[in-house]
Amino acid sequence: MKPYPETMKICRFAYKNSIYFGRLTNESVEPLENYQLKTIKQTLPISKVKILPPVIPSKIVCVGRNYREHAEELGNEVPKEPLLFLKAPSAIITNENPIILPKQSSRVEHEAELAIIISKKCKSISPEENPLNYVLGYTCLNDVTARDLQKKDIQFTRAKSFDTFCPIGHFIETSLDPNNLKIEARVNGKIKQKAHTSQMIFPVEFLIRYISNYMTLMPFDIIATGTPAGVSPLNPGDICEIEIENIGILKNPVKREDEL
Amino acid sequence: MKPYPETMKICRFAYKNSIYFGRLTNESVEPLENYQLKTIKQTLPISKVKILPPVIPSKIVCVGRNYREHAEELGNEVPKEPLLFLKAPSAIITNENPIILPKQSSRVEHEAELAIIISKKCKSISPEENPLNYVLGYTCLNDVTARDLQKKDIQFTRAKSFDTFCPIGHFIETSLDPNNLKIEARVNGKIKQKAHTSQMIFPVEFLIRYISNYMTLMPFDIIATGTPAGVSPLNPGDICEIEIENIGILKNPVKREDEL
Repeated sequence: MKPYPETMKICRFAYKNSIYFGRLTNESVEPLENYQLKTIKQTLPISKVKILPPVIPSKIVCVGRNYREHAEELGNEVPKEPLLFLKAPSAIITNENPIILPKQSSRVEHEAELAIIISKKCKSISPEENPLNYVLGYTCLNDVTARDLQKKDIQFTRAKSFDTFCPIGHFIETSLDPNNLKIEARVNGKIKQKAHTSQMIFPVEFLIRYISNYMTLMPFDIIATGTPAGVSPLNPGDICEIEIENIGILKNPVKREDEL
Repeated sequence: MKPYPETMKICRFAYKNSIYFGRLTNESVEPLENYQLKTIKQTLPISKVKILPPVIPSKIVCVGRNYREHAEELGNEVPKEPLLFLKAPSAIITNENPIILPKQSSRVEHEAELAIIISKKCKSISPEENPLNYVLGYTCLNDVTARDLQKKDIQFTRAKSFDTFCPIGHFIETSLDPNNLKIEARVNGKIKQKAHTSQMIFPVEFLIRYISNYMTLMPFDIIATGTPAGVSPLNPGDICEIEIENIGILKNPVKREDEL
């Protein structure tokens, strides 16, 4: 698959029992022919379609402690090389879908992150090659974490893989300088995390090349690039927003499991 | 998707540029109509098809330290509840494919495990429901691990997700009592691990229900149920075999990255 040359917002939507990729504008979605086997020609108003998460990845590779102040706030050392872990793809939701607080945790926190979406299969990207050639685009991601279970378990898996614990933006922005973006998390409008992607210890290009040397990245795989300082708990009734400059806002209400 | 009622070995194979599920016998594969959109009627000799890994799961959920003697041999305590981690699906290979020793590790070890293959989406299986209703079948799995990286990283992800680090059997056995099987690993014919699935700390039914309470399990997801004592290093030129009673043998040669 080849990324479109132009700047665009790629979304995925359901319409009359089929699923399509589309180009998102303020009011409509235009199906993208070369992203799918089946397609339709017409441009559709957003009100007529159901917007889905823009990708369902074969894996979500997350990077821990990639901002100095966040590593320090949790009492951890700054890592010498990227700390990798995986989040289950079944945790993915998108904009406006609720984050469900599970009964097994008493402290669930937001983590604002820039997500990289991979365009083409890649393995062991060489030092000469530009890793950005394998990027379809970027979106906001909330690496929701049951902090109590994370501390208890040592392994991050269970604490980070509950259903709804991976909200991602409802579109992919294809043209962006990923290393020069303001990133912010707000709870009920109050700023909790505020940083800049230039503060990443390991920047975007480094991460893609590094990870590709450990495992083959597939089209639509997600790399979550780590969260800055300021993580804080989410409570039922909260509205959590992740905003990244030149991308937009990922907004999710927070509910308790028994409220469903 | 509904499991076939009868005992069978389900495989996946490529034939003339298409991929099919099939029923495997000693000498042939018979396409299974209800497992795919596209199908063919004829039974094909194995020599005419390419056998693929029987599933590509949306996630591989692994259980650590599920046999007492293995927890002890690595100096770990026996866990009070299952220790979960994820392995990247890009690591999957099948019978006869080589395990590639990556340059980043100097100690890669085998881990013989019984793999559960999920048949139907399930979430929060209740105490009244039988978790085996969500099982398509079982196969052998080798949870290949870069032991040096596992010790260094704390998080298991990187050590266990290299490409080729998840050999699985080339078929799924649909009818089996999973809690009553001999399990063995051999390197160059020499027995290294020898145990019985009845020795699992958390048995198969418990694991499926437990994991479904933390994350939704999808059709074809794999649960790797943990490895018994006796893990040992793999070297270039070795042949590693995982054998499970009433399933069969998963056999993989071992190569160095630069031998490819």
